[in-house]
Amino acid sequence: MREVVHPGGKHGATLILGIGELTTNAPGTPGATDDDPTGVVHDAAVLLDGDRVAWTGPERDAADGVEEALGRAPDRTVDAGNRAVIPGFVDSHTHLVFAGDRAAEFEARMAGRPYAAGGIAGTVAATRAASDAELLAGLRRLVGEALAQGTTTLEVKSGYGLTVVDEVRSVRLAREMTDEVTFLGAHVVPPEFEGRPDEYVDLVCGEMLAACAPHARWVDVFCETGAFSLAQARRVLLAGASAGLGVRVHANQLGPGEGVRLAVELGAASVDHCTYLSDDDVAALAGSWAGGGPGTVATLLPGVEFSTRQPYPDARRLLDAGAVVALASDCNPGSSYTSSMPLCVALAVREMGMTVAEAVWAATAGGARALRRADVGSLAPGARADLVVLDAPSRVHLAYRPGVPLAARVYRAGREVAHSSAR
Amino acid sequence: MREVVHPGGKHGATLILGIGELTTNAPGTPGATDDDPTGVVHDAAVLLDGDRVAWTGPERDAADGVEEALGRAPDRTVDAGNRAVIPGFVDSHTHLVFAGDRAAEFEARMAGRPYAAGGIAGTVAATRAASDAELLAGLRRLVGEALAQGTTTLEVKSGYGLTVVDEVRSVRLAREMTDEVTFLGAHVVPPEFEGRPDEYVDLVCGEMLAACAPHARWVDVFCETGAFSLAQARRVLLAGASAGLGVRVHANQLGPGEGVRLAVELGAASVDHCTYLSDDDVAALAGSWAGGGPGTVATLLPGVEFSTRQPYPDARRLLDAGAVVALASDCNPGSSYTSSMPLCVALAVREMGMTVAEAVWAATAGGARALRRADVGSLAPGARADLVVLDAPSRVHLAYRPGVPLAARVYRAGREVAHSSAR
Repeated sequence: MREVVHPGGKHGATLILGIGELTTNAPGTPGATDDDPTGVVHDAAVLLDGDRVAWTGPERDAADGVEEALGRAPDRTVDAGNRAVIPGFVDSHTHLVFAGDRAAEFEARMAGRPYAAGGIAGTVAATRAASDAELLAGLRRLVGEALAQGTTTLEVKSGYGLTVVDEVRSVRLAREMTDEVTFLGAHVVPPEFEGRPDEYVDLVCGEMLAACAPHARWVDVFCETGAFSLAQARRVLLAGASAGLGVRVHANQLGPGEGVRLAVELGAASVDHCTYLSDDDVAALAGSWAGGGPGTVATLLPGVEFSTRQPYPDARRLLDAGAVVALASDCNPGSSYTSSMPLCVALAVREMGMTVAEAVWAATAGGARALRRADVGSLAPGARADLVVLDAPSRVHLAYRPGVPLAARVYRAGREVAHSSAR
Repeated sequence: MREVVHPGGKHGATLILGIGELTTNAPGTPGATDDDPTGVVHDAAVLLDGDRVAWTGPERDAADGVEEALGRAPDRTVDAGNRAVIPGFVDSHTHLVFAGDRAAEFEARMAGRPYAAGGIAGTVAATRAASDAELLAGLRRLVGEALAQGTTTLEVKSGYGLTVVDEVRSVRLAREMTDEVTFLGAHVVPPEFEGRPDEYVDLVCGEMLAACAPHARWVDVFCETGAFSLAQARRVLLAGASAGLGVRVHANQLGPGEGVRLAVELGAASVDHCTYLSDDDVAALAGSWAGGGPGTVATLLPGVEFSTRQPYPDARRLLDAGAVVALASDCNPGSSYTSSMPLCVALAVREMGMTVAEAVWAATAGGARALRRADVGSLAPGARADLVVLDAPSRVHLAYRPGVPLAARVYRAGREVAHSSAR
């Protein structure tokens, strides 16, 4: 890839030319066909001005586009060398504030061996014992790792503290790295409340929520047998909503349940996992978008099924019913310790019945819908200038070349933040 | 990771300290337990002298080890920061000399759509039409991509030329990048010989072999219904052996067949795919090592099954019978366009019944066995100094963190050849 900094130009506007295949997720983009929700333009260019996209379209129209959008020459021109460009990944579901790992538990699970010390409790104990600096170092490392793979927007949940003090510091530390912070005090019932889940829910909805809400944008609850009941989940979500937080839900991961319908009923932005769905669940998810939205996104997390050998969720069924699907990593040390959105795309195509176009949309625009964000997940003019130059001529390579690091360059808010050194 | 270059030291000897978990694949290594074929040492150190491993063992013994092995201070000390170190991956099966890609065919296959122009013929046509420079550029790109992921030894096959001229230039170009070049003129019957496979085999065994053998170490044949029959495969392999080439075979990929037993009968170093095996096949593979070896390695290629939705081979059955198993990428534009050995490890653990230790051994020492190489695949003193520093405390993370680029530093023949910039 060649890059020319124009002499005398101020830093600020970058024109990326020579894009073999540009995914905009903006169907009205010049050069894209009307019936393509991913708004693909071939032989395309993108103009970034400051932290925003200023213009996108066919390269042959770039001179006019730049003149109209900028009124002057760009400060910098990058030739993408016929590579593909996609919007930065929007990973709407991660749990990155924790200490320790659970490699031994993973290894035992894969080998079919029992592992007595397994489960979230180990991570909770390690997280409580860690210093702020240790937690922040781990968080920074994983955010950087995700960014290098093309993830430019990342939600981070609390949920391994499970005391007022430890949940507050979890959301506070997460807030240092992202705007998309979720209070998940109701992740599991901690050991010290064993057998007294309603008392723990009292704490979550009372003092813990009050302390965490100022640092968070979202409230979440794990509504599942073995975690929190429908009634408990409803209490947590309503309390969070009263505190001004948006609603999201973990549900229907390990078996059927009423969590998905609760999420739709409460107008949640997203319900995550969705592995075991009834026809009513699917209809409710699709129906939530019937009035034009915003409805409840079904966020699928295939890294979990890969790492636990559970059956994959049926994305095709959701899409065919008209539901809106997002893909996210669920990066966490227990059930899915991957930060790789490209792997999620590959698994969605291999295992979940999605086309490449649907999977890439779900991992970018879908994640943005799940976070109710209009400024990320697309490359329409005015969007935040978040994009990934792939070391490939087409986005298809994200599924066609599984495991291969394909993010050649990553831009976030107009600034290049990662650059593959091996290419 | 901290690195100190000692003032006045000559370049040449590097001591890597602070290795949290060192996989040597050398069971006698000081600090390793006798019953562990992967020779793991915790809190370990490795001394590299020139292009060779000079010493490995517990870090607490490093001063004595360096004194004994080197007789002076090392020129450079690297602190691995408690990361895991493994031998460089040995990818014993790739097809990297080709032009074009088959992304559209892959996309159609995943969507269950027919794709008339699919198959190897398209790659053959594109390869024949490409210039040497184009083929070499593609080869270099993929070898570099593999190296950045930790692959320090790589076999490359011909097989997309299928004329004397195009096969010769394929092996000649491959030879510019690796010692492990395989002549695979008998990949498929080319279009111009349709209906006359024996005449094509005459060409392969005659003029084509004579022209290619000087550039190759191995001969290979695709023994499968739709490719070459048992009798044709035998002819090709015997002709290759007469020309001084070692024998390897593609077999039992798409259905049961006699290819595996032919490979064992002829003393092949490896038989690759092994998806459909009879009890006799498994017994033959295990039996080939009964006399102390070297026998025939069963090389499994899970990238193929991932990318074609075929059933995965049963590694557990082979291992339990006493066969020697390798993992390789089969990197090629048709059935497995991944260069990622870490993904192969993750798939072997998720899908094929291997433990992490078995999978890492198979991707390193197993590949070395499949290439009959004693100098790579382990970190015993005297081995080539090929190793990967993982951005993880344990090799388990290769499966536990699927899709995440974990190669923090890669050394080949004692020289650092890749360094993750994102960490």
